[in-house]
Amino acid sequence: MKTKISDRLHSLRDEMKKSGIAATIIPQADPHMSEYLAAHWQSRRWLSGFTGSAGDLVVTADKAYLWTDSRYFLQGAQQLEGTEIELMKDGLPSTPSIETFLTSTLKPGETVGINGMMFSSVSAESLRDNLAKHDITLVTDFDPIDNIWSDRPALPDAKIFVHDAKYAGLEAKEKIDNILAALPGLQASSQFISALDEIAWTLNIRSNDVTYNPVATSFLYIAPDGQSVLFVDDAKLTDEVKAYLSAQGVSTRPYDAIMDFLASLPSEARVLIEPGRTAEAVRTALGCRAVSGASPVAEMKACKNATQIAGIKDAMRRDGIALVHSFMEIERRVAANDGISELDVAEILRRNRSAQDLFFDESFGTIAGYEAHGAIVHYEADENSSSTLKPCGLLLVDSGAQYLDGTTDITRTIALGTPTADERRDFTLVMKGHIAMANMIFPEGTNGAQIDVIARQFLWKNGLSYLHGTGHGVGHFLNVHEGPQRVALNISRFPFKPGMLTSNEPGLYRTDVHGIRCENLVLCVPAMKTEFGQFYGFETVTMFPFDLSLFDTSIMTDEEIEWVNNYHTKVYDTLAPGLSGEALAWLKDKTSKLTR
Amino acid sequence: MKTKISDRLHSLRDEMKKSGIAATIIPQADPHMSEYLAAHWQSRRWLSGFTGSAGDLVVTADKAYLWTDSRYFLQGAQQLEGTEIELMKDGLPSTPSIETFLTSTLKPGETVGINGMMFSSVSAESLRDNLAKHDITLVTDFDPIDNIWSDRPALPDAKIFVHDAKYAGLEAKEKIDNILAALPGLQASSQFISALDEIAWTLNIRSNDVTYNPVATSFLYIAPDGQSVLFVDDAKLTDEVKAYLSAQGVSTRPYDAIMDFLASLPSEARVLIEPGRTAEAVRTALGCRAVSGASPVAEMKACKNATQIAGIKDAMRRDGIALVHSFMEIERRVAANDGISELDVAEILRRNRSAQDLFFDESFGTIAGYEAHGAIVHYEADENSSSTLKPCGLLLVDSGAQYLDGTTDITRTIALGTPTADERRDFTLVMKGHIAMANMIFPEGTNGAQIDVIARQFLWKNGLSYLHGTGHGVGHFLNVHEGPQRVALNISRFPFKPGMLTSNEPGLYRTDVHGIRCENLVLCVPAMKTEFGQFYGFETVTMFPFDLSLFDTSIMTDEEIEWVNNYHTKVYDTLAPGLSGEALAWLKDKTSKLTR
Repeated sequence: MKTKISDRLHSLRDEMKKSGIAATIIPQADPHMSEYLAAHWQSRRWLSGFTGSAGDLVVTADKAYLWTDSRYFLQGAQQLEGTEIELMKDGLPSTPSIETFLTSTLKPGETVGINGMMFSSVSAESLRDNLAKHDITLVTDFDPIDNIWSDRPALPDAKIFVHDAKYAGLEAKEKIDNILAALPGLQASSQFISALDEIAWTLNIRSNDVTYNPVATSFLYIAPDGQSVLFVDDAKLTDEVKAYLSAQGVSTRPYDAIMDFLASLPSEARVLIEPGRTAEAVRTALGCRAVSGASPVAEMKACKNATQIAGIKDAMRRDGIALVHSFMEIERRVAANDGISELDVAEILRRNRSAQDLFFDESFGTIAGYEAHGAIVHYEADENSSSTLKPCGLLLVDSGAQYLDGTTDITRTIALGTPTADERRDFTLVMKGHIAMANMIFPEGTNGAQIDVIARQFLWKNGLSYLHGTGHGVGHFLNVHEGPQRVALNISRFPFKPGMLTSNEPGLYRTDVHGIRCENLVLCVPAMKTEFGQFYGFETVTMFPFDLSLFDTSIMTDEEIEWVNNYHTKVYDTLAPGLSGEALAWLKDKTSKLTR
Repeated sequence: MKTKISDRLHSLRDEMKKSGIAATIIPQADPHMSEYLAAHWQSRRWLSGFTGSAGDLVVTADKAYLWTDSRYFLQGAQQLEGTEIELMKDGLPSTPSIETFLTSTLKPGETVGINGMMFSSVSAESLRDNLAKHDITLVTDFDPIDNIWSDRPALPDAKIFVHDAKYAGLEAKEKIDNILAALPGLQASSQFISALDEIAWTLNIRSNDVTYNPVATSFLYIAPDGQSVLFVDDAKLTDEVKAYLSAQGVSTRPYDAIMDFLASLPSEARVLIEPGRTAEAVRTALGCRAVSGASPVAEMKACKNATQIAGIKDAMRRDGIALVHSFMEIERRVAANDGISELDVAEILRRNRSAQDLFFDESFGTIAGYEAHGAIVHYEADENSSSTLKPCGLLLVDSGAQYLDGTTDITRTIALGTPTADERRDFTLVMKGHIAMANMIFPEGTNGAQIDVIARQFLWKNGLSYLHGTGHGVGHFLNVHEGPQRVALNISRFPFKPGMLTSNEPGLYRTDVHGIRCENLVLCVPAMKTEFGQFYGFETVTMFPFDLSLFDTSIMTDEEIEWVNNYHTKVYDTLAPGLSGEALAWLKDKTSKLTR
């Protein structure tokens, strides 16, 4: 492997020399600014040997560096060992940003080359501006990967299928009309969409190109008078889907035809692009025809309609049933001390979920973190790390599924034995925040940066905190992470609106001890209208009990205890009809009344 | 008066015609971007006859308009009646902004003229950009007021006095050194300060130029090697102050010498200005020498040192004693039904405060709002409006004082009779927010937009809200409103730091019914340091009881009741040594234990 890495970097440097490039950045990215990448776009992984899901490779004439964040410091060090690539620990005060590094390493007059399809317009512009201040040029058409990666995987070719309007609640045609109606207000007459989840939502299509995200690799141009075009490889299209798209007023062209198409648009075209989710190369191709702005699709997609909400609730019911079977099995195997491991937990969940109606896939890789592993926020067990569960300590399980009628995402932290006072106190402080957010009422216009503090206040009061956000938007049989709303301290100025599905997941991570996270999905719903305006609140839609043994009621208010009991009653009433025998008895026990 | 207004507008239009100006804006402003204006700068008032503290006049060749906010809709309509000036109700959806109005009213090629000394660089730039989009020119040297206002009041000429370092805690010399040390990090070598409170703080000087704000009208240039200059009218300087400034390394020049001085600076000078608090004319005079950035003085001034904190606490003690005498007197006169009015309340407070050691002035005009008047957030009684207090309903009293060792600002809402259940519920919901903020612990880096929600959560849960911020910074024997920190929903990204003095003042205003506000000043203090970092909290420094009869303990937690009792115990212990006889007994009763 080490020799391979050396050879690959050598080939890359040959290409750099040919193009007069002093440094290049190979990012973890695709032309759609996706969170999960198809194999075709794993060039950073191929070049460096580093397999983490985040990290950018920088190569100069004689050095190579990999920037990655704290989740991957250990893995990065291991996987880069013996190669010439130096690990750059992103986020440490002593680590420069890639931009700062390049401006201090390169000489004035030198050139940085990147592939403008792999950088958003926003990030390329920032890079260009900062380099220019040091008289360093950025070229964005340096694309050497095809030349040097001889066995590069092909573009994803999974077949596209139609996501029935009985799940989506709205025909693609209507959605396109709604988007077109929004464009004039944004000073545009058409829109070019690169974000795969926005395309899937708009056209009511799904595919299986990317693990966990049921999207189809494509670009979408939306224009009036039947001029809308889906750019997609023909291999992905069945006759049925072609006919469907045509009926929705959308023609198709090859995936790689976009550049010619964009260049051929009339000069008076006004094409909306969202610069943070559109490749720099696309913006360049549009030139003066590009109108930068927020995509209207993001908000339309975020606010679920009545059909979607009904689907989500039924998906939650089936997911809850799968969770009952799973956690019952985990509990019994731990009690039997049969050697059950973190990896087994993931397998049990997958097995039980896949037995449910309308199951399609998991919505992300299960995080099952036992004891100290629970404190590693993005931990994912592999064969080397997977711990054996014993009848003591805390187990954190974060998992979810894609059902045709909804996407789920739930975290439970359970005690595998009799919990300690510290474990119960930590858990209860997290739950107090979870309950405060679940119970919160707020005026129209409130954003997630404001909501976030409500979930943190009890931890803060005890000198505790967590570094991740409290909530993210969740798609409908789509990406488990979606915007525009978020619940996080310093970001997300986007106000919450009815129909938005969001996670409520405060946590607490004690390094080398344990991790706690309590996550349900909540729907934003109208709460009341008063002389002070319209107020909203949240309806919790995830249906599975919290571990009763972990509550320390001595630090809970009556209102908080009442919330737990009301929630557990609802969980029982929702799931019981689908359970019987031992599973029903298990759920009855797990939802019994919490008392002081 | 109406004829006068007409004559004045006529003179203004003559000047406009001479200068080829199609429209002008006469703002409520001075060259220092002050909140309170000296008489010399009340040209908007003189031209329009409107006396409100906020409002901008726009005059075109044949029309005149006054923009003011909802506080002044009624007063504006009354005072403008019979004049040609049309009231523009700022904040209503149907009211255009001044910029929108000008661009839709004027023709391309026309010119708007303003006095660049009366507009901040930020606002002038925004105006220029927006006008330019419609091919309208902005000129910023149109200053007709001196020509048309023959009996214009002179510049303020109150004598400057030194604010002893025994109160300020730091000599001016040291402060100047600290500022100079901060400038290189801001890419500047000197600083030009227009903000009067920053100048007063830096030089440890005070004066009496402006009601409520003990500042001296001046500009300050801070530069290394004894090159610092205070621009101030000689009339304001005693020999003692001249000698003092000289000893601090600061020379003086006339107030009106700034333009020549700025123009004479060497071209390589890098002069820091804060564009939101610096006049456009100053920025223009500096040209390329101007470096825009946040003034380092703001944060230095906001974080009170140990000497200031000791002074603030003693000022709070004396203020509390004055408040005991005042509220006791108010209570007795109301009980006696002797015709006591809102204006009398203000007089009583002023009289008792002025009897205290180190009293200098009030820190703002007392707001005494009885019943429905309490719901008008910025109500200030005058002889026409002043209500007679009766032994029923709520009285809101917001008042404060300038002492040589500290500035106070306190709001209490009291029941003049037996409160109703609704009054008690409203009051208690406001107090729950007040207590939540007073008790809050938060990590280093937390800003006021995050803290704000903590104070609102209980009102929100009941569909209630208030439109003002929850807290503002407070100066030290300086402006009662100061930055950079604020507690407000969508603004203030400035993190709280130890020593910052801030108000904690949630409220609730039911139009035509009553207004409630509960305000103490709180100091940011270190709370604890844990594995999760440094945490801060607040120490309440205002010393006066809340009205026990207004608490509805049925909706309070034990922790909230305990906070009230602990606070009242501290108030009693702090104030009792300065009281005797009836006053001491009154305080004992008012701080008795709150129980369920």
